[in-house]
Amino acid sequence: MDLAGLIADATDLRDGDIVVVAQKVVSKAEGAIVRLDPGEDRAAARRRLVREQAARIVADAPWALIVETRQGLVCANAGIDASNVEPGALSLLPEDPDASASRLRAALRRRAGVDVAVVISDTFGRPWRMGQTDVAIGLAGLPALRDERGGRDRYGMLLEVTEVALGDEVAAAADLIRRKADGVPVVVLRGLAWTPDESARAADLQRPPAEDLFPRGRGALADLLADPPELLSAAAPDGQAGPGADERRRALAAARRAGDGRVRVEPQGAEGEPLTVVLAADSQASDLIGLGAAAATLTAALADFGWISAIDEQATAEGHRLVVRVGRPEPRPVAAPRAGSISDGHR
Amino acid sequence: MDLAGLIADATDLRDGDIVVVAQKVVSKAEGAIVRLDPGEDRAAARRRLVREQAARIVADAPWALIVETRQGLVCANAGIDASNVEPGALSLLPEDPDASASRLRAALRRRAGVDVAVVISDTFGRPWRMGQTDVAIGLAGLPALRDERGGRDRYGMLLEVTEVALGDEVAAAADLIRRKADGVPVVVLRGLAWTPDESARAADLQRPPAEDLFPRGRGALADLLADPPELLSAAAPDGQAGPGADERRRALAAARRAGDGRVRVEPQGAEGEPLTVVLAADSQASDLIGLGAAAATLTAALADFGWISAIDEQATAEGHRLVVRVGRPEPRPVAAPRAGSISDGHR
Repeated sequence: MDLAGLIADATDLRDGDIVVVAQKVVSKAEGAIVRLDPGEDRAAARRRLVREQAARIVADAPWALIVETRQGLVCANAGIDASNVEPGALSLLPEDPDASASRLRAALRRRAGVDVAVVISDTFGRPWRMGQTDVAIGLAGLPALRDERGGRDRYGMLLEVTEVALGDEVAAAADLIRRKADGVPVVVLRGLAWTPDESARAADLQRPPAEDLFPRGRGALADLLADPPELLSAAAPDGQAGPGADERRRALAAARRAGDGRVRVEPQGAEGEPLTVVLAADSQASDLIGLGAAAATLTAALADFGWISAIDEQATAEGHRLVVRVGRPEPRPVAAPRAGSISDGHR
Repeated sequence: MDLAGLIADATDLRDGDIVVVAQKVVSKAEGAIVRLDPGEDRAAARRRLVREQAARIVADAPWALIVETRQGLVCANAGIDASNVEPGALSLLPEDPDASASRLRAALRRRAGVDVAVVISDTFGRPWRMGQTDVAIGLAGLPALRDERGGRDRYGMLLEVTEVALGDEVAAAADLIRRKADGVPVVVLRGLAWTPDESARAADLQRPPAEDLFPRGRGALADLLADPPELLSAAAPDGQAGPGADERRRALAAARRAGDGRVRVEPQGAEGEPLTVVLAADSQASDLIGLGAAAATLTAALADFGWISAIDEQATAEGHRLVVRVGRPEPRPVAAPRAGSISDGHR
């Protein structure tokens, strides 16, 4: 499918326009469509594909599976979608939406001789808010964020934390004038002043994991505690060898409280180094119950911060001790969709 | 401050326009401004006020306190803001933003003779996404959500879960053409087709707690485990007497795994009734450690679902048992800001 040609023919683009393209049509143009086996249930196939495409499961509810995709997007059902796709097929996200946007922008410049921005939009749900809004999953030309930090307000006060999610607001604005059922693939925004940025990318709209306050949804901890991943290495894949100072302090405080004064809680390893915690108690029944509670509470608190633990039990001359080693699991490889079932695009 | 008069004088409104008003100017017009004590540090005063205004703390990070406000909004710092407010004061959210929007809409009809929609917008951060977007915290006339459920896509497939957050997309679109530093209080959107709805309210954009997959942010569990609220009642304030079937199953599975086959885990009470779990083990050291671990794991898993637990330890002839009672804390009353320090509006 020659998407740039179709857009150039259907619109009268001018320099400075912002071309907002629905994810679905980009996925179709790039052949990111999975054809199901004959007779395979589409809902069941989607659940299977979501788990295959997920780098990480964020929340698992009966009505939605929230995951982080291989592109780094956190969204329901990995963006895998059955609407406006032919029966017997599902649409995946484009493999690299920023690259898709850049190619489309360059093709529109060649084809129509115009300098436009391109935003690839998709429809996302949100925590705490009802309804969906469109966000930018890929873009080119238009800065993803409009940095207003360092500006001053009407009283001369510095604006410290104001960075407008320009790409997402553009996607939301474009969504105002179309209905999902229309299948309108492209909306052109005209008249907005923007400064071209050749290095712009929607990936800048993805919050870095270290700043993510919501790594897990309700119930994910219960599943993690029931089925913990194996501790393969004390060092985290991102190079952080152990919990930070604040994480250590709060997890150890929880363990000490669970031990109810009967358990000695001794961390080993400085901040930034691998963490081991030795918990020890006497052999009284209440002390031993407290020892188990302290270790489990430490494990749960650390899991809440994104760390996992392995526990060794040791009998000593004075009583009992548990050695809790803390690390991160190796990141799970993301499976590619079954190659044989990918179609050659939209037919 | 006669906000409707100022807007009517500064604009040339027509029927069908959407008037998007920044929260700040509504708060100023309504006197929702707190004057600080002389010499009081503005950042420290804000932290104090945020905790006073919060119905619930969702996440506590060094750089932001995410709370649920008394209006039911989940946002950073309870919407309490120092930008574009005179020195020595802070702006609170309007007490009832939907009522504020309705009053403003009626006043514009009287004053300018036009039927417009009113959206009160505020700037919110988002989980997983960088930058802020404007959302609708109050509205009148314009439906908050555009329900596309029941529609059909281009292949005739039913659109099952598509409900566009119209109010939020309107707020985001309006934000595109202003800078925070400009202090532009009002943006008029013209040309969007919308169906007037006299019962419209932005509160419909707030996800009900039962559907909320993100009741807590990173680290909140560690703090909860270190400092659990008292179990005052086995019945939840929302009338739900105990965890649902899925929550029970997953929490009990976590406890059984932590008990490592050495702890008997016996739930009492059917779904929808108060839940008590009896955990029992023999007197061997490893069994007692497992007993403590199972109880603490059950507590942590239930806390992840929003429930709290109280544990009683009992010695029996055969060994030891722990009785875990499950309930919800009473909701914490929200403190009003100190009345004496509220100014009579913007001077």
